[in-house]
Amino acid sequence: MPEAAFTQATIGDSEFDRDTALTLREPGVYDIDLSAGWTIISAVNGGYLLAVLGRALADALPHADPFTISAHYLTASQPGPAVVRTSLVRTGRTLSTGQASLFQYDEEGREIERIRVLASYGDLDSLPDDVRTTAQPPAIPPIDQCFGPQDSPAPVPGSSAITDRLMIKLDPATLGWALGAPSGKGEMRAWFGLADGRDADPLSLLLAVDALPPTAFELGIKGWVPTVELTVHIRCRPAPGPLRVSITTRNLAGGFLEEDAEVWDTEGRLVAQSRQLARVRLG
Amino acid sequence: MPEAAFTQATIGDSEFDRDTALTLREPGVYDIDLSAGWTIISAVNGGYLLAVLGRALADALPHADPFTISAHYLTASQPGPAVVRTSLVRTGRTLSTGQASLFQYDEEGREIERIRVLASYGDLDSLPDDVRTTAQPPAIPPIDQCFGPQDSPAPVPGSSAITDRLMIKLDPATLGWALGAPSGKGEMRAWFGLADGRDADPLSLLLAVDALPPTAFELGIKGWVPTVELTVHIRCRPAPGPLRVSITTRNLAGGFLEEDAEVWDTEGRLVAQSRQLARVRLG
Repeated sequence: MPEAAFTQATIGDSEFDRDTALTLREPGVYDIDLSAGWTIISAVNGGYLLAVLGRALADALPHADPFTISAHYLTASQPGPAVVRTSLVRTGRTLSTGQASLFQYDEEGREIERIRVLASYGDLDSLPDDVRTTAQPPAIPPIDQCFGPQDSPAPVPGSSAITDRLMIKLDPATLGWALGAPSGKGEMRAWFGLADGRDADPLSLLLAVDALPPTAFELGIKGWVPTVELTVHIRCRPAPGPLRVSITTRNLAGGFLEEDAEVWDTEGRLVAQSRQLARVRLG
Repeated sequence: MPEAAFTQATIGDSEFDRDTALTLREPGVYDIDLSAGWTIISAVNGGYLLAVLGRALADALPHADPFTISAHYLTASQPGPAVVRTSLVRTGRTLSTGQASLFQYDEEGREIERIRVLASYGDLDSLPDDVRTTAQPPAIPPIDQCFGPQDSPAPVPGSSAITDRLMIKLDPATLGWALGAPSGKGEMRAWFGLADGRDADPLSLLLAVDALPPTAFELGIKGWVPTVELTVHIRCRPAPGPLRVSITTRNLAGGFLEEDAEVWDTEGRLVAQSRQLARVRLG
């Protein structure tokens, strides 16, 4: 028998789906074991965590798609057990608003809050088709002219478990930091997908906006850049195929910076916009 | 005796301060009578409401300055009695995170939630002076070459009580909508201040980001554009003098649009950034 051919994972049956799966404990309360597969160094990636919270709300609310979700990051999450507690704030015809918190446990088993979110959900498929946009997709070279951690002869600084789960191919123009020559511009651009080939959906877009190396690396900052707050707008259900992600920082001041992300699909639609406020810890 | 000369209002003694003043009912709970002076048509302006919530949190939290505040707008507020309920989420050395909701009352006196916010507060004066920014202030003509509602021979469409409280002088390049010739670009730019001359502070910046005419007017849309969610980052304490506010919409799709606002002070510093998701109701 020949070895099984590589099979592309599908939405609902992939690493991402298994690692964001929640177990209903009681109405609105969900248990999960946070996977070590989505860590950067030892901390769990903030985009993966947002997808976990987003999935809990998708189950708990009358509407299934996150339209806008705002997360405040309180303490760093670790792989292992966690509980997500959701509550309904308001139900409307077009939008439902909910709140959710992710907790882990201290040594005495007490809950420690990691993240709190407010979100409004709707039905992306119910939206009219009108588009009046002046936004243009980022100019990124073809995917075979971009580079990821797998293309490096030596481990890329900051590479971590999460790199095995993602397909990230960085625009060479924003790769100077990895070669010791940051551009000085707060820009990061890449092709993005899941390593097992699962296509994007609204939940994986919550991961996509926070999965690239920090723009601060291109500003010559090597330290950690923890997220204080991250808000994501999902504007459209993404088409199959790799996404283009562009992240820009225009203002680093007083030890804080913003990261503005745009995500574009293969049909040239702006499918997500996000902004985060992050702290700069000088390394 | 001669008539009293015009006296410029000061931070702490102005219309804005009186109309956002809260009465402590019990720890973390505040009463307020929402002023009819900040309405657009009959609805209370979302930026004024955010300033009310922001002021309650400034009192309730250990830190006084909003660094990032995310508001989800649930139902339209009316002038009259309201209560703000706050809770502490987490206290850290540099940042404190809190939650607040604004409620009004139905005919039976039951509370109806209008807005819920999550916010992280800090101390703007404690931040280091480092600035590495590529952002540039918007190009707006000098204030005497810009136009406000007071310059119109007839009432400007959509003019409302709030126009008496604000000094808004719009860049002529973004004023086409008022003359029946919208530019088709989703841009709105203006000089901004409070009509009584009170200088800006972090709380009035929460008003400044949501006080200009909607960018949708310049896209030829005449209907109402209610805010779903608004997140504001306060990056710096503003210097005295008028602010420059620039608002941009790049993507109107599926009946929703984003409004990105930047606020610059007289010293050329980017003092606030905001983004909102709003619904387009075709008029």
